[in-house]
Amino acid sequence: MSITLLFLVLTIATSVASPLNQIHLLKPHPGSAGHKHSKLNCLSWRLAVETNNIQKWKQVPEACENYVGHYMLGRQYRKDVDLVAAEAYEYAKGLNITKDGKDVWVFDIDETTLSNLPYYARDTVAFGAIPYNATAFNAWIEEAAGPAIPGTLKLYKRLIKLGFKIVFLTGTEAAYAEARTKNMKKIGYTKWEKLIYKGEGDGSGVVYKQAKRKALEEAGYRIRGNMGDQWSDLLGSNAGDRVFKVPDPMYYIG
Amino acid sequence: MSITLLFLVLTIATSVASPLNQIHLLKPHPGSAGHKHSKLNCLSWRLAVETNNIQKWKQVPEACENYVGHYMLGRQYRKDVDLVAAEAYEYAKGLNITKDGKDVWVFDIDETTLSNLPYYARDTVAFGAIPYNATAFNAWIEEAAGPAIPGTLKLYKRLIKLGFKIVFLTGTEAAYAEARTKNMKKIGYTKWEKLIYKGEGDGSGVVYKQAKRKALEEAGYRIRGNMGDQWSDLLGSNAGDRVFKVPDPMYYIG
Repeated sequence: MSITLLFLVLTIATSVASPLNQIHLLKPHPGSAGHKHSKLNCLSWRLAVETNNIQKWKQVPEACENYVGHYMLGRQYRKDVDLVAAEAYEYAKGLNITKDGKDVWVFDIDETTLSNLPYYARDTVAFGAIPYNATAFNAWIEEAAGPAIPGTLKLYKRLIKLGFKIVFLTGTEAAYAEARTKNMKKIGYTKWEKLIYKGEGDGSGVVYKQAKRKALEEAGYRIRGNMGDQWSDLLGSNAGDRVFKVPDPMYYIG
Repeated sequence: MSITLLFLVLTIATSVASPLNQIHLLKPHPGSAGHKHSKLNCLSWRLAVETNNIQKWKQVPEACENYVGHYMLGRQYRKDVDLVAAEAYEYAKGLNITKDGKDVWVFDIDETTLSNLPYYARDTVAFGAIPYNATAFNAWIEEAAGPAIPGTLKLYKRLIKLGFKIVFLTGTEAAYAEARTKNMKKIGYTKWEKLIYKGEGDGSGVVYKQAKRKALEEAGYRIRGNMGDQWSDLLGSNAGDRVFKVPDPMYYIG
């Protein structure tokens, strides 16, 4: 029995001692020659990203690829989203909306309502530790295979029951509207007041998003809530009565 | 040797299996009768607090007292502050300031530059899990015994070297100015352009802070950076060219 116990304990101790096992064992690590941020604490990095203290970052630091991968694939990411969604619902429930069809909730799409995790988990993407490849990402959009983010899908359904109109406002270009719309319907986002894709000349990031929100408010809509994974979804003018930031340590859009 | 190894491994496994040992073993836990948020994930709670997704919370959920205590007393809190301070310095370094004495950096005091952790670690405070007691906290201020937050003190010194003028803007009432000023000087904050205490009729939170920042800008100062532990330090008008949020999971000021 003591041998069995020893084996068990050693197994536990080993798995605890190296919780960040390699996800992509076969992927070369170019940074091992000295490009790693050896002193970077990945928990601090993620917190700084989520609080918008670190801005304009190009990709996940290589030292944090495994950390980000384990976070995104593990239960903590889901729990983090679930709590934000629950808090958003508590807030929404407390609003006495007029039900004249003008109280809207703005949702971003990517990493807010629809997950690109099957794409980001690829060896060639490495949870954002490898530079963005527009061609590959756009091919993934065309697959229309992104799953729903469970916490946000639940919130979406509950908001509709409360009488909110839903506006999806995405940075995805209009050229991909067909595939994206198909994807959204397939995973449970079946109705909306508007689904706004980015047109040519719309700009990007906060400039694009605030212009579209301004147009919504000028058209008489009241933005009661606004949820996104990027601070550029939530900052700027006409942000909404309250904003909710869902986690995304994989990429930054300014 | 195998016995020694077994002991060692058991010790490691045990310490890992219950990382959140009680801090206040003697403190009664009234919530054990059913008031605990048994499903609350404290990592998610802290992230939601730091991103301003959870607002107007009165105290640390009892279920998270130990978690918050270990976080604040452990190395992760320090590392989290250090990274924000390092990022703020990188930003500040990149500004070509005119050195006309009008480029200012606004710092909050409590939990931004000066720590009240010796007070918050008391059994009667429980890292914010017990409701705020103004009398006891004010007596603590009079002790002038708060330590500096190391990462922020380092940033303060580096900003002065870069040529920034420092403005401390605190919610502490003017009645405690003498003790607080003494405390600040004692721990290394020896010079400033202004140290603003809250006067009677100044309001509180975001209303108070934005009014004082507005007055600074009207007096010709340029707020190039603004750092605080509360979102009410950083939101509202005249927020500054860039804001930095340092962690504080112990209390909320709206």
